[in-house]
Amino acid sequence: MKTSEIAQKLGGELHGDPDLEIKGLSDIKTVADHQLAFLASESDVKELSRAPRSACILVGFPPSSDLRCTAIRVAEPKVAFARIAAQILRPVQAAGWHESAVIAEDATVEAAYIGANVSIGKGARVGVGAVLHDGVRVGAHTKIGERTTIYPNAVVFDNCELGAGCVLHAGSIIGAEGFGFVRSGDEVLNFPQIGRAVLEDNVEIGANSCVDRGALGETRIGSDTKIDNLVQIAHNVSIGKRVLIAAQVGISGSVVIEDDVILGGQVGIGEHATVKSGAIIGGGSGIFSGKTVRAGFWAGKPVRPIKKYKEQLALIHSLARFRKEIAELKEKMD
Amino acid sequence: MKTSEIAQKLGGELHGDPDLEIKGLSDIKTVADHQLAFLASESDVKELSRAPRSACILVGFPPSSDLRCTAIRVAEPKVAFARIAAQILRPVQAAGWHESAVIAEDATVEAAYIGANVSIGKGARVGVGAVLHDGVRVGAHTKIGERTTIYPNAVVFDNCELGAGCVLHAGSIIGAEGFGFVRSGDEVLNFPQIGRAVLEDNVEIGANSCVDRGALGETRIGSDTKIDNLVQIAHNVSIGKRVLIAAQVGISGSVVIEDDVILGGQVGIGEHATVKSGAIIGGGSGIFSGKTVRAGFWAGKPVRPIKKYKEQLALIHSLARFRKEIAELKEKMD
Amino acid sequence: MKTSEIAQKLGGELHGDPDLEIKGLSDIKTVADHQLAFLASESDVKELSRAPRSACILVGFPPSSDLRCTAIRVAEPKVAFARIAAQILRPVQAAGWHESAVIAEDATVEAAYIGANVSIGKGARVGVGAVLHDGVRVGAHTKIGERTTIYPNAVVFDNCELGAGCVLHAGSIIGAEGFGFVRSGDEVLNFPQIGRAVLEDNVEIGANSCVDRGALGETRIGSDTKIDNLVQIAHNVSIGKRVLIAAQVGISGSVVIEDDVILGGQVGIGEHATVKSGAIIGGGSGIFSGKTVRAGFWAGKPVRPIKKYKEQLALIHSLARFRKEIAELKEKMD
Repeated sequence: MKTSEIAQKLGGELHGDPDLEIKGLSDIKTVADHQLAFLASESDVKELSRAPRSACILVGFPPSSDLRCTAIRVAEPKVAFARIAAQILRPVQAAGWHESAVIAEDATVEAAYIGANVSIGKGARVGVGAVLHDGVRVGAHTKIGERTTIYPNAVVFDNCELGAGCVLHAGSIIGAEGFGFVRSGDEVLNFPQIGRAVLEDNVEIGANSCVDRGALGETRIGSDTKIDNLVQIAHNVSIGKRVLIAAQVGISGSVVIEDDVILGGQVGIGEHATVKSGAIIGGGSGIFSGKTVRAGFWAGKPVRPIKKYKEQLALIHSLARFRKEIAELKEKMD
Repeated sequence: MKTSEIAQKLGGELHGDPDLEIKGLSDIKTVADHQLAFLASESDVKELSRAPRSACILVGFPPSSDLRCTAIRVAEPKVAFARIAAQILRPVQAAGWHESAVIAEDATVEAAYIGANVSIGKGARVGVGAVLHDGVRVGAHTKIGERTTIYPNAVVFDNCELGAGCVLHAGSIIGAEGFGFVRSGDEVLNFPQIGRAVLEDNVEIGANSCVDRGALGETRIGSDTKIDNLVQIAHNVSIGKRVLIAAQVGISGSVVIEDDVILGGQVGIGEHATVKSGAIIGGGSGIFSGKTVRAGFWAGKPVRPIKKYKEQLALIHSLARFRKEIAELKEKMD
Repeated sequence: MKTSEIAQKLGGELHGDPDLEIKGLSDIKTVADHQLAFLASESDVKELSRAPRSACILVGFPPSSDLRCTAIRVAEPKVAFARIAAQILRPVQAAGWHESAVIAEDATVEAAYIGANVSIGKGARVGVGAVLHDGVRVGAHTKIGERTTIYPNAVVFDNCELGAGCVLHAGSIIGAEGFGFVRSGDEVLNFPQIGRAVLEDNVEIGANSCVDRGALGETRIGSDTKIDNLVQIAHNVSIGKRVLIAAQVGISGSVVIEDDVILGGQVGIGEHATVKSGAIIGGGSGIFSGKTVRAGFWAGKPVRPIKKYKEQLALIHSLARFRKEIAELKEKMD
């Protein structure tokens, strides 16, 4: 793709060579010929001037007059870089089945890529353009949508449903039985875990993350929701659209997360809690079972509005002074 | 199974059609003909009246007189539902080996199901009725008990022992080397991790959870203990019977967890700590290394009895008022 | 190996039979003939006297005169035991490829062990003495160093690099795409994750742990660094040499961890934070985004120097007393 073409696609302003051929992407430190580099901050412009002339950048601010390279100026460089990356990078994996794949006779596999040692169960359906890498296991009667990519050794259990354009990273487990046990005296009985897990379109699940199936109903993750590595989503959880969940978050059974929520790393949420649309929960925070958290920025264990949380931290740091002041008052009083 | 038969097995009181054939289980919202639905709360009875006549429920309270469906009344509906589920659901997986399985010549595999791409090491023993799903790896000289199920891509290392009726969920790792290192100047040496991991009967290990082998001795998990997803059990930990451990709990080396303990999600326990029988630890709590926690309900980091923990939270929330009161006292004093 | 030979290698003082043949290692409780037992504390000497004469121990203190077994006395028993274990235990896995392995034609595999169902991508290189257990996936153009061991079902993605003598435990994922998304209105765009992950020599990664590739640059882990199970290392993190990271730690994007740092279990570190060489962070602690933590022992959420952390805990436990004292002062004042 030529720089002029990129500038046009992005609605950006081109500065420099319009005919430069771009074949790859890079960061500013390792940029080479025919690569488009991403500029994280204005101060990096200097580093760029040392880079070969043939490199090219995206900037959200006026290029300095002595800029020696080709540049494209856009309002939102990160968005623009992501957009162009999607067009330059996405490798098209040719359809085809590896001979070692074990595919049930009655499974329906469209023009998709099926890697080595993949298993596909009875009655499963795999959509056009799907990519199932080596060692992936797809259960019986499960549906994998078009253009969905599943990385090596991930597992999707029976009767689950993945929409179009989803990404399951390596080792992720979708639709395992949830954790439901009932005590009766010294007996520990399994409560049935026979529901399913549903991922809507463009959902992304991180490496080694787990999304359990519903106990009797379903666990559902809304479209465009992105989940990082080592996250636990328990049975019957309902997650809205465009939710971002950072690594190692744990979400207990029957929790409801509404649209556009952001959860920082290692957040823990107790059973039957609700996080309302627009809430942002700081990393390491905790939400107690049954609680409802409104829109806004929250932090702490249990969570409080960020302003209160910070105030509280400051007060805790003042405790030694409080103790001293109380002692002085007592002394004076005596 | 007929409703009359179910009522008899459960010692429940039947209301309605005794000859209704039950072929599956469901939640109250999606119940269909010939299904037994679980009723979570009394208010859901209304929803049920909209369901087809042929459905059937379990209730722990007197059915309302206008109930249009067949119902079985029991003292503990959740226990009863779990009990009947175990009889209706458990699919019997026919014994047989997939041709792609790699089984050591001297391994002893009884009438068991061995899926695609399973590996079974030298001298391993797999009991009658065991089910090893696709991609499972069983190490040398490891023993898998009767009727134990291992889901796809789980790994059990050498010299380990799993009892009867255990369940290893997908991606779980049993008997990996523990984390033991010794510094000597700038060298980092591996302390030997050559013990084993033992799971007694009916133990369940969640998806992507890890149970390390003992360093020199063993890591042991008592019968009927159930462990959720993404849990870490370090080397030489000893866990009792009927313990319930929620997701993302981390248990450090040589910890002792006695019988009937419950650990909430994301709990962390330091090395050589002991949790006594009957203790319940709230989600997100922490227990310091070497500490002993008695029976009762505990929460916080470090844990405190739940009453003290709540009192402490309230006091922390009162700190701004304390500051104000101290300031007022000082002013008055002056 | 004879006891005299072991004593000589360790520079230890031999007490008892110099010709005793040692064939294995053990803990003190299960020691048998021809085994070398590790003695954790002086009080265990008594237990040893019950063990067969042919057993042998390592002690860092003067053996009692009535010791009935052969003993080797060294200054640092744990280091000595680890050193001798490395020589007695390391099994040499003969080179060879299992017929079910899928190896790209242009991959370069030296004299290494390649297990069942292993996949090796285009242009990958596997060094002499490497051991790739069953179900391991190695991406295209990835380099696996000499004597590196990869346990079952672990995954290394394209363009990554592992040094010599590394160990990847089962289910670990190296080089998956990091978690980087950009919002543009209701769209959620993937920021490109096209960098790589580099592990220097003798790095160890725990079971089911994840090390993401760099977004544009690289994620790097320094030599001799050891990482426990279920740990998350995000994109562009830089970790120094000889760092020890306990289970379930979460390290966010672009964090810098310098040499010789120790992180306790479940620690969480926010984006762009720096942990300086020599810092020790207690289990369950949290470091906020962008913060720098100096050498020393730290604990709490957010972290404080351990002395301050303990003082703060004590002050929080005194809050009920503070409240009482304030009330008394007010009463007196009135």
